[in-house]
Amino acid sequence: MEPVVADVRIETDLLGPLAVPASAYYGVQTRRACDNFNLSGVTLAHFPQLINALAMVKQACALANTELGLLDQKRGDAIVAASHVLLQGQFHQQFVVDMIQGGAGTSTNMNANEVIANIGLELMGYERGQYQHLHPNNDVNRAQSTNDVYPTAVRLAILLSHSDLLAALSRLQTALRNKSHEFADVIKMGRTQLQDAVPMTLGQEFGAWASTLGEDIRVLASLSELLKEVNLGGTAIGTGINADPCYGKLAIEHLSRISGFTLIQSEDLIEASSDMGAFVLFSSMLKRLAIKLSKISNDLRLLSMGPRAGINEINLPAQQPGSSIMPGKVNPVIPEAVNQVAYQVMGHDLAICMAAEAGQLQLNAMEPLIIYNILESMRLLKRAMMMLDERCIRGITANRDACADMVHRSIGLVTALNPYIGYENATRIASRALKENRSVIDLVEEEGLLPADELRRILEPRRLVNAIPDTGAW
Amino acid sequence: MEPVVADVRIETDLLGPLAVPASAYYGVQTRRACDNFNLSGVTLAHFPQLINALAMVKQACALANTELGLLDQKRGDAIVAASHVLLQGQFHQQFVVDMIQGGAGTSTNMNANEVIANIGLELMGYERGQYQHLHPNNDVNRAQSTNDVYPTAVRLAILLSHSDLLAALSRLQTALRNKSHEFADVIKMGRTQLQDAVPMTLGQEFGAWASTLGEDIRVLASLSELLKEVNLGGTAIGTGINADPCYGKLAIEHLSRISGFTLIQSEDLIEASSDMGAFVLFSSMLKRLAIKLSKISNDLRLLSMGPRAGINEINLPAQQPGSSIMPGKVNPVIPEAVNQVAYQVMGHDLAICMAAEAGQLQLNAMEPLIIYNILESMRLLKRAMMMLDERCIRGITANRDACADMVHRSIGLVTALNPYIGYENATRIASRALKENRSVIDLVEEEGLLPADELRRILEPRRLVNAIPDTGAW
Amino acid sequence: MEPVVADVRIETDLLGPLAVPASAYYGVQTRRACDNFNLSGVTLAHFPQLINALAMVKQACALANTELGLLDQKRGDAIVAASHVLLQGQFHQQFVVDMIQGGAGTSTNMNANEVIANIGLELMGYERGQYQHLHPNNDVNRAQSTNDVYPTAVRLAILLSHSDLLAALSRLQTALRNKSHEFADVIKMGRTQLQDAVPMTLGQEFGAWASTLGEDIRVLASLSELLKEVNLGGTAIGTGINADPCYGKLAIEHLSRISGFTLIQSEDLIEASSDMGAFVLFSSMLKRLAIKLSKISNDLRLLSMGPRAGINEINLPAQQPGSSIMPGKVNPVIPEAVNQVAYQVMGHDLAICMAAEAGQLQLNAMEPLIIYNILESMRLLKRAMMMLDERCIRGITANRDACADMVHRSIGLVTALNPYIGYENATRIASRALKENRSVIDLVEEEGLLPADELRRILEPRRLVNAIPDTGAW
Amino acid sequence: MEPVVADVRIETDLLGPLAVPASAYYGVQTRRACDNFNLSGVTLAHFPQLINALAMVKQACALANTELGLLDQKRGDAIVAASHVLLQGQFHQQFVVDMIQGGAGTSTNMNANEVIANIGLELMGYERGQYQHLHPNNDVNRAQSTNDVYPTAVRLAILLSHSDLLAALSRLQTALRNKSHEFADVIKMGRTQLQDAVPMTLGQEFGAWASTLGEDIRVLASLSELLKEVNLGGTAIGTGINADPCYGKLAIEHLSRISGFTLIQSEDLIEASSDMGAFVLFSSMLKRLAIKLSKISNDLRLLSMGPRAGINEINLPAQQPGSSIMPGKVNPVIPEAVNQVAYQVMGHDLAICMAAEAGQLQLNAMEPLIIYNILESMRLLKRAMMMLDERCIRGITANRDACADMVHRSIGLVTALNPYIGYENATRIASRALKENRSVIDLVEEEGLLPADELRRILEPRRLVNAIPDTGAW
Repeated sequence: MEPVVADVRIETDLLGPLAVPASAYYGVQTRRACDNFNLSGVTLAHFPQLINALAMVKQACALANTELGLLDQKRGDAIVAASHVLLQGQFHQQFVVDMIQGGAGTSTNMNANEVIANIGLELMGYERGQYQHLHPNNDVNRAQSTNDVYPTAVRLAILLSHSDLLAALSRLQTALRNKSHEFADVIKMGRTQLQDAVPMTLGQEFGAWASTLGEDIRVLASLSELLKEVNLGGTAIGTGINADPCYGKLAIEHLSRISGFTLIQSEDLIEASSDMGAFVLFSSMLKRLAIKLSKISNDLRLLSMGPRAGINEINLPAQQPGSSIMPGKVNPVIPEAVNQVAYQVMGHDLAICMAAEAGQLQLNAMEPLIIYNILESMRLLKRAMMMLDERCIRGITANRDACADMVHRSIGLVTALNPYIGYENATRIASRALKENRSVIDLVEEEGLLPADELRRILEPRRLVNAIPDTGAW
Repeated sequence: MEPVVADVRIETDLLGPLAVPASAYYGVQTRRACDNFNLSGVTLAHFPQLINALAMVKQACALANTELGLLDQKRGDAIVAASHVLLQGQFHQQFVVDMIQGGAGTSTNMNANEVIANIGLELMGYERGQYQHLHPNNDVNRAQSTNDVYPTAVRLAILLSHSDLLAALSRLQTALRNKSHEFADVIKMGRTQLQDAVPMTLGQEFGAWASTLGEDIRVLASLSELLKEVNLGGTAIGTGINADPCYGKLAIEHLSRISGFTLIQSEDLIEASSDMGAFVLFSSMLKRLAIKLSKISNDLRLLSMGPRAGINEINLPAQQPGSSIMPGKVNPVIPEAVNQVAYQVMGHDLAICMAAEAGQLQLNAMEPLIIYNILESMRLLKRAMMMLDERCIRGITANRDACADMVHRSIGLVTALNPYIGYENATRIASRALKENRSVIDLVEEEGLLPADELRRILEPRRLVNAIPDTGAW
Repeated sequence: MEPVVADVRIETDLLGPLAVPASAYYGVQTRRACDNFNLSGVTLAHFPQLINALAMVKQACALANTELGLLDQKRGDAIVAASHVLLQGQFHQQFVVDMIQGGAGTSTNMNANEVIANIGLELMGYERGQYQHLHPNNDVNRAQSTNDVYPTAVRLAILLSHSDLLAALSRLQTALRNKSHEFADVIKMGRTQLQDAVPMTLGQEFGAWASTLGEDIRVLASLSELLKEVNLGGTAIGTGINADPCYGKLAIEHLSRISGFTLIQSEDLIEASSDMGAFVLFSSMLKRLAIKLSKISNDLRLLSMGPRAGINEINLPAQQPGSSIMPGKVNPVIPEAVNQVAYQVMGHDLAICMAAEAGQLQLNAMEPLIIYNILESMRLLKRAMMMLDERCIRGITANRDACADMVHRSIGLVTALNPYIGYENATRIASRALKENRSVIDLVEEEGLLPADELRRILEPRRLVNAIPDTGAW
Repeated sequence: MEPVVADVRIETDLLGPLAVPASAYYGVQTRRACDNFNLSGVTLAHFPQLINALAMVKQACALANTELGLLDQKRGDAIVAASHVLLQGQFHQQFVVDMIQGGAGTSTNMNANEVIANIGLELMGYERGQYQHLHPNNDVNRAQSTNDVYPTAVRLAILLSHSDLLAALSRLQTALRNKSHEFADVIKMGRTQLQDAVPMTLGQEFGAWASTLGEDIRVLASLSELLKEVNLGGTAIGTGINADPCYGKLAIEHLSRISGFTLIQSEDLIEASSDMGAFVLFSSMLKRLAIKLSKISNDLRLLSMGPRAGINEINLPAQQPGSSIMPGKVNPVIPEAVNQVAYQVMGHDLAICMAAEAGQLQLNAMEPLIIYNILESMRLLKRAMMMLDERCIRGITANRDACADMVHRSIGLVTALNPYIGYENATRIASRALKENRSVIDLVEEEGLLPADELRRILEPRRLVNAIPDTGAW
């Protein structure tokens, strides 16, 4: 029976012949990698930006090779065209290797080489597998090594994913800023160490969250600059073996044009071949963002504690019934999910750091884990911020009366009297208020420490929260 | 046009009506959770053991409720039958909620309640959604809260996954032990701090890896005992509200029988509702296993360093071409992948610890992240160990000559002469050997420190590696 | 001028002669280590149990060596006597090497060898440095290697520190249990996900903390068993080179007797020379304890939130003024310090894991960092628990009225009505209560869902928190 | 007997009277903090830069207060003078509070307030404790809160410590660069994934380490800019309560002048009061440096593996005897210690991240742990780099023959033939070379794939390591 034969084609590599599905655009080396690495179940295809980055790199290298006469025009054109096709997305599913893989990215690079070769072969009018006309290694990978192509593509993949992340972050920041304006006149107690401190507005509280995310927009953008330094042209270990000295810079020029990012070549290509520093710092910054989001989520859950046995200053919009047993319960499920994403991102950062530390001599064999975790963290953070924005922040309402009531009853007001009655008098008043369950204002009046009208003026809420100068006292 | 209407059914919960696909066995609350949590993309369906555990718990609760007269026989039977159907696996794809979710597992529990209710309704001859005949909350979740059902199911899911993990670990250990026998007579240099130490056999080296994994088989099994303590019957916060006092223990008896694990009820159900201690310790143990696997992988990569510019004591079986540029290069891709899995597991452990620390008051809302990471770590470790066993350990061969040659040239032999010539003489000999590039044996003979035949006897390899007593000297 | 000469003595090792202070009991190798490692500033002397453990090991080895005739009686006696003197503590300050050190503990071992030799020399009537009469390597370190002596001593040091840790943990648990009894009748709202859930007692809340720490007492004790397996007798790499085959077990018998712990020899001494598994798991357990303490501290801070703008269910005893600017403010400084200790312990655990993973071939050169962090974590945890017990838990008082008031106002009560009015009725009542700002009891009565007396009976607080069976309903 | 009375003085605060040693410059609040926090044993005095930073802040605030007329000239002058005295160092030992402390730094701030007040009182001619003349809170802490003073001082302390760190890093980089020049002509095999790759020079290897550290010099400097944004003037929660609106900027101007750093006030003082983002990122950068140092240390240990049973390409200078049992053994103790410091720094970073995430609402109560770990990491890294520079790098020598020999025997040379004979021919040659234990050159000649002279030209070492263009082939 012949049909079975028709379903596969035989390809050969260093280890001998192996069957690959006849329909596959990938080849023998990809197939071996699939057999070897059945680990996370998350394939390269899950991260389209990584595939696109590989396509751009291959395109740029082919252009450089053709210009330098290292690749004939016909093959060069085929690679360029095939890479262009790959960027359209319909062959992304041919990237079947697991994100967790040994080999320092060689399997990822070969998956790209093989798919581009086979697309190119078809464009040239040949059949898949007729590599004598367009070879994954000799042609697509010409003057390249996994060790320069892969780190370059990986950096580009992060840059390509970066704008989505920043967009989600910006929208979330805007939502917080809008709420900050909406709640500008809601006076409430500020709290330090969970203890009543001094008054502020709910708008200031939301505004602080907007500000802190604003900083991360700026720093993320600035740190992504470090990723624009690539080692293309260094080939195997950075000595540029098998690459024309002009080739690296030329390929990078093409890649900059194709990708829209101004990439530069590392000054020390030996160093750049193994260095994971840019990834470590970028992941650290993702972790910092995660920590901030987690802190904001913690605060949202605290402020909405209740509804009756908590401080209940704000209401989070209900997104789903909170309990299978407690009727009417609504839980802060959105911030809780953000917290969990944050912890996951912190876990990813640890995996990245361990992988970075494990590099040896001229290469870091653990780079696939690094890029997997960075891209996964970026995706999780993006989605978590979109969720937090759309399903929580925008729908938050304030319980103005509850907020005002707590300010009125608070002992923290006494702080504002420090400059007028001194820290020790104020301390005594605070102690009496607590012990006798009375208000600060009553006690100050009773003790005659300040005239009533001055007392009112000093404790005027807008003044307390805005630090309006009070010339009388200063 | 009517057909569109037919594609959905409308269900209602605390938040109002919502359409769910007419074909769905899940219901409104599952649907809301899907809308809310689009995060990891990994759904409950990825972890069949978790779904099976939920099915077993629901079955056990229904049996207990029926026996106590809290559920009529017809409904009880339907739940039991539906849970049984669920265990067959064909409805696993109805578990569509993301593993990372807010709500402390409520969405997972409701996904189970809804799917079981709808399977049960069909078994009873009703249509999906006719909950007046079998209700997800009133019937399937009867006398239950997410807060006792979910932690119980999660523990059971780990126990159900445990045997696969141990099996992979045992097979790997056996493979190492087999190699230990195969290499029992390969004399080589032991190394401490990467410096030549004293002779040993390659068999001893592989045997040590087998031994260290053997310890983990024992400790993993022993720590899994902690997971057999469950809080079923505690309901919302451990006070057992809405549950008959007899119900918890009865349900646990049924669950033990159904699952095959001897489960016991926690003595302090309040504590058990929020405590994550068993997960923290179990994950720590997974991390310990990961660390050991990583250390073994590091060693394998070191020992196979070469082939010409390294120590090259062993050959790892080639699994794929190692380089897109360097012909003939074969890399230790399998141990490299194991390293990466180990780092990932360590990252998961950190996420688990952060989630555990974030529990507040009577519940830990972050439990979904904990179970996600534990199950993922177990799956990764299992697959990594199978890979290491089948694609690396079994095919390792020894370079006997290289090993023997290094022993012969080594200065470390001088250690064995300590008891005969003293530490200071031995130190001087070692220094001379290094400086003059000569062998220890030559120098000891030259200096006349020991008669030649005694020297040979002392340095007899089998004696050195086995610590055979030497009555003459002791 | 001669006096200068008198201030030092010259000792010689592999690297040549070097001056050590004439008054020093340590020798040349310790001196080199001090010069090399000026890192943490924390010397061995900070951990007396480590020094005592070294003294016990040296004593045990000397006894074994003497019995086997490998050491003459006079030298053996001197070592035993010197070790005994060392245990008295007055020479602990001679342990001057930094806890963070290269060399896999060799410097620690040599510091012990040298100090014991010099104490022994004086006991024998010789002067410090006259090593021909009692030699740090040939005699004190006889049949030993750092690689078996150090891991053994390190395990013993943890065991010796363990009882203090457990005692502090037990006292803290007792304090919590006492409060549990004191607050047994304080009814309050339980909270899940920071939202009002169902009633419980404050006693149950404190009781849960006592229970969770009780589990850690048991598990810590059980895991410490793993530390009782030692590799003494394995010498350099576990082959037992230079040691009589009877010596290891004999030395361990002596060490068991001297230390009071039943130690056993590892079955696979090669494995035991490099394996850090017991440390990893023990540190993980310290981390688990830290996580629990942090969770308890978080809860204490939440429950005492206020005094006026929080839930204020409990009062923590004031330990210091809380603010340099806000008079009368008292902050939860003790739980805050516990949180920080917990985070530090988690950081130490990470350092330990990284060090454990970095072991190579026959030894883990990073063991000094592991023991430093374990001992430091144990000390921090012990002190933090003493602080929490004495300066916080014991002085906590309950605000009974505030607690009762929140139960009365709560909507969570409706949960108890589920079995009587159904989940959907209960959900509707809960929604109305929240929207109309009314109580659940009012609404149930108004809707006539249950007779008033039955309603009161169902909602009777003691019943709600204790799950007293209610035969009428079940 | 009276003398006992004379040894203490009684001071009073919110909690009542308490005795402090008569000789103490600190006061009652410091004393309470000492009683409360007996944790790490590491006091503020261990970090002189932190004390100096506090002194500078207090000085700047006093100047601003005096200029604004908020503090009379006499008291202002006394505070300025006392701060100046404090900067001289002789009162540093009065900073006795534990670095791990609850209270968000209040105890540290009060320790500074009290010591400065008492020094000032003596300068004014009063006795310690006569606070009516110069009060720790009313005067020294005037218009300040711990919550703005402490974060400001902490940032300044890092800035003050920064130059030492950078200096050590620069010296280490220079040492590596010098070695890079020294070894510029040592041809050796490059290795990827521990397998022989292609030739390079030992100089390039050292140069890569120099380059990678050079990047960290630049990034560390750039990230330290984030620390120059301070929240002075925000007081308790950032609303500036009790502070003149002009005061903050004025105080910061003075502080910039005094410290020599151009500090700016945060735009959003609410945000700045609780945000730990700058610390998280700075610590991440320290972690990145640690990871790089650890990687370099791993490489140094690998390259010096031997002396006879390893690759032994370089010799690390011997710093101490390596073994208590193995004569003549010299271990890479310095890199090993650097590894351990790196792991410790990574542990510190985790503690910092956990503390940062634990901030709540308007303040992060865990800031003392953050600054403790940052300063400790900086100190450890500085010392580790000095050690690595002085005791290792400078003394490294190359084993030129061993290096050259491995290049000659290597199969990796075949890579350079790819462009001439094709990837598949090269692969076959490589396989034969390995199987037949022959050299690549022999086989290429034997197969007549290239003329002998062209083969020599292509494989000319300088060409291989420098990527000299070879017009014939490209």
